[in-house]
Amino acid sequence: MINNYLSQTTKVMKSSLIRELVATTKNVPGLISFAGGFPSPATFPKDILSKLYGEVVAEEGRDVLQYGSSEGDNFLKSELLKWEGYGDLNQDNMIITVGATNAIYYMTRALIDEGDVILCEAPSFLGSLVAFDALGADVQGIPMDAEGLDLHKMMEKVKQLRENGKKIKFLYTIPDFQNPAGVSMSLARRHELLNYCEAEGILVMEDNPYSRLRFSGEVLPTLFRIAHEEMKNSYLVTEIISFSKILGPGMRVAYAKGDATLINKMVSWQQKVNVCPDCVTERVAAKFLAGGYMNPHIQSICDFYKPYLAKMLDSLSVNMPPYVQWTTPSGGIFIWLWLPEDMNADKLFFQAKEHLVTFIPGSKFYPEGQEKFNCLRLNYTYSSLEQIETGIERLAGLIKSIYA
Amino acid sequence: MINNYLSQTTKVMKSSLIRELVATTKNVPGLISFAGGFPSPATFPKDILSKLYGEVVAEEGRDVLQYGSSEGDNFLKSELLKWEGYGDLNQDNMIITVGATNAIYYMTRALIDEGDVILCEAPSFLGSLVAFDALGADVQGIPMDAEGLDLHKMMEKVKQLRENGKKIKFLYTIPDFQNPAGVSMSLARRHELLNYCEAEGILVMEDNPYSRLRFSGEVLPTLFRIAHEEMKNSYLVTEIISFSKILGPGMRVAYAKGDATLINKMVSWQQKVNVCPDCVTERVAAKFLAGGYMNPHIQSICDFYKPYLAKMLDSLSVNMPPYVQWTTPSGGIFIWLWLPEDMNADKLFFQAKEHLVTFIPGSKFYPEGQEKFNCLRLNYTYSSLEQIETGIERLAGLIKSIYA
Repeated sequence: MINNYLSQTTKVMKSSLIRELVATTKNVPGLISFAGGFPSPATFPKDILSKLYGEVVAEEGRDVLQYGSSEGDNFLKSELLKWEGYGDLNQDNMIITVGATNAIYYMTRALIDEGDVILCEAPSFLGSLVAFDALGADVQGIPMDAEGLDLHKMMEKVKQLRENGKKIKFLYTIPDFQNPAGVSMSLARRHELLNYCEAEGILVMEDNPYSRLRFSGEVLPTLFRIAHEEMKNSYLVTEIISFSKILGPGMRVAYAKGDATLINKMVSWQQKVNVCPDCVTERVAAKFLAGGYMNPHIQSICDFYKPYLAKMLDSLSVNMPPYVQWTTPSGGIFIWLWLPEDMNADKLFFQAKEHLVTFIPGSKFYPEGQEKFNCLRLNYTYSSLEQIETGIERLAGLIKSIYA
Repeated sequence: MINNYLSQTTKVMKSSLIRELVATTKNVPGLISFAGGFPSPATFPKDILSKLYGEVVAEEGRDVLQYGSSEGDNFLKSELLKWEGYGDLNQDNMIITVGATNAIYYMTRALIDEGDVILCEAPSFLGSLVAFDALGADVQGIPMDAEGLDLHKMMEKVKQLRENGKKIKFLYTIPDFQNPAGVSMSLARRHELLNYCEAEGILVMEDNPYSRLRFSGEVLPTLFRIAHEEMKNSYLVTEIISFSKILGPGMRVAYAKGDATLINKMVSWQQKVNVCPDCVTERVAAKFLAGGYMNPHIQSICDFYKPYLAKMLDSLSVNMPPYVQWTTPSGGIFIWLWLPEDMNADKLFFQAKEHLVTFIPGSKFYPEGQEKFNCLRLNYTYSSLEQIETGIERLAGLIKSIYA
């Protein structure tokens, strides 16, 4: 009945394939899952947060239980600018949102007309891909190499798209510990990419959920910081930072920094979509920063995850046959695995379930029609060390038995 | 620079005119404001909420700080179904959203293609009107009488729109203590309206932020309840209930009940827009219901507001000249005032500011091009009793001096 009333976009809209896949693995006894993208609940600072929630509502309830502003809590914004060390930015350059996906949605809504092109790494974050798709964008994936997005491939793609009369609005990129590939963009590539995008008039949406989760190696400047501090370009990059992996995703706190005009348009969308974020949670996040809890907490998360990454990389080295390859990230929460070209991870998924181990088939992370099938994503932050070892043994055994 | 990149919709999108108007009255010393739509902070149950927030995060932090489901917290849903007494509905008929505007946005997104018609009361809630507009709807207002939406006018409008080949998707209505008019739809009108909508295949979006704020008189069944219980129609009405006026708007909690297919599509949009609501706040709201706090709390809000409404109605009776008329609601937070036909409340707004009293000009609540100018909205929940008396004296004095 209702189907006759649905909008065209809604009729054809895809829901998360991952969700449906993961649902098929629910209630399988003994299954070891590397499928999720959830942080470990052991990392949630619930005692500090419990105290802050109680205090904020008791002491500032008249304020935080009232409507807030659509651009977000000023107190939180000023704490964020201090935390990140952007003394020269002001509050007009920032919006607080209900998680990072929310900021991605607003920015896409603000920029994309039906058929406009969004470039992205292929593979990329499925949540963004489905939102881009639902908003009518033409999403075009660009392969990565060990240094991140392949700039030459991007140049070719841009040339070809423009020859076909396409309007390219922005590049969506996750430069640090990319989801799903676990690749980080090299410093040289960051510079080359930004110079190219500036010259070609292609905006950049920098999705940054993981950069603080670095367990070793040198911290690289974000694209936003390079554009802002080195290139003195105030509009090129909009950076979206999530608190989901460094505080708790249930709180739904994220923010975007960028050009004041664009941020203002995102605020206009927030007025129409959510009115404002949860003001209690905004203030709690602000107090978490103001109390100096954030940096030690992030360090404790990194200390916590580091052995899990090491264990998974070690288990892969010990168990996988030589024709399987994988990325070796220094942080984040994912590892990407390449199978031989003629193996199909969509099929492997169902076989793996029989062998009590699961993952997300890589094809799910590509724009429609641009899929690769000989790849898969592994998460290492939601299983025990023992489960990681056993799960990788199972997966490697299965791959060897199929490919033998 | 960024302007060249904006989407067409975003370029022409209107921000809230009310917001800009209200901004012009900021920092005027001694100004009495009847402009806002904010609940009184004195009604926020901050001590109970402070305790619940602290407990929920301490005891259930591993759960509520994690990602939640896009359809909302099951515990909250089941408490809501119990609270409302809908034992025969199940969780598939409900979505939890980040405030009521968020539910309105999802439902509109799920149903409206560019140019589709949304019918609404004229005047109506501006937040919804701008969202409808931004989503490309053709918004058509229908006048009200003392019993609510004028059904004969609606029938004429539907006939005329269909003759012009227009596709009418749904009626947006606020049957209880309508914003801005303060009118409640009579029981007879509710039945007539629903029978008509069912016969004509026009869905109903019932926006219900105020029905629990009834200070006197008989509680009327919601449109959803009539459709569900009497008409046995499971798809006709989707009801959106906000906690903003009965708990605290800063918490951003609302929910929608309706046809499972439609709710599922709204969930798909929530996945792309917010992923899920704030899980901490969802669980706190659930505990507030489970603890039996809600009904006594609502009674205390009604007891608190009742004298403010009485004071404003009394002040209007005492001070206003006979050519000014107003609605006499039994609850909610607004009164609507009609000036003589040749008076313009947009102009009066600026004169009133000089006389240290403010309100929202009625024209701001009409779909574009369908404005009435001899009307205005008064809020009585955000001023003291003395301010209400003085403010209405000032406004009446000004009107008499202009019209004399």
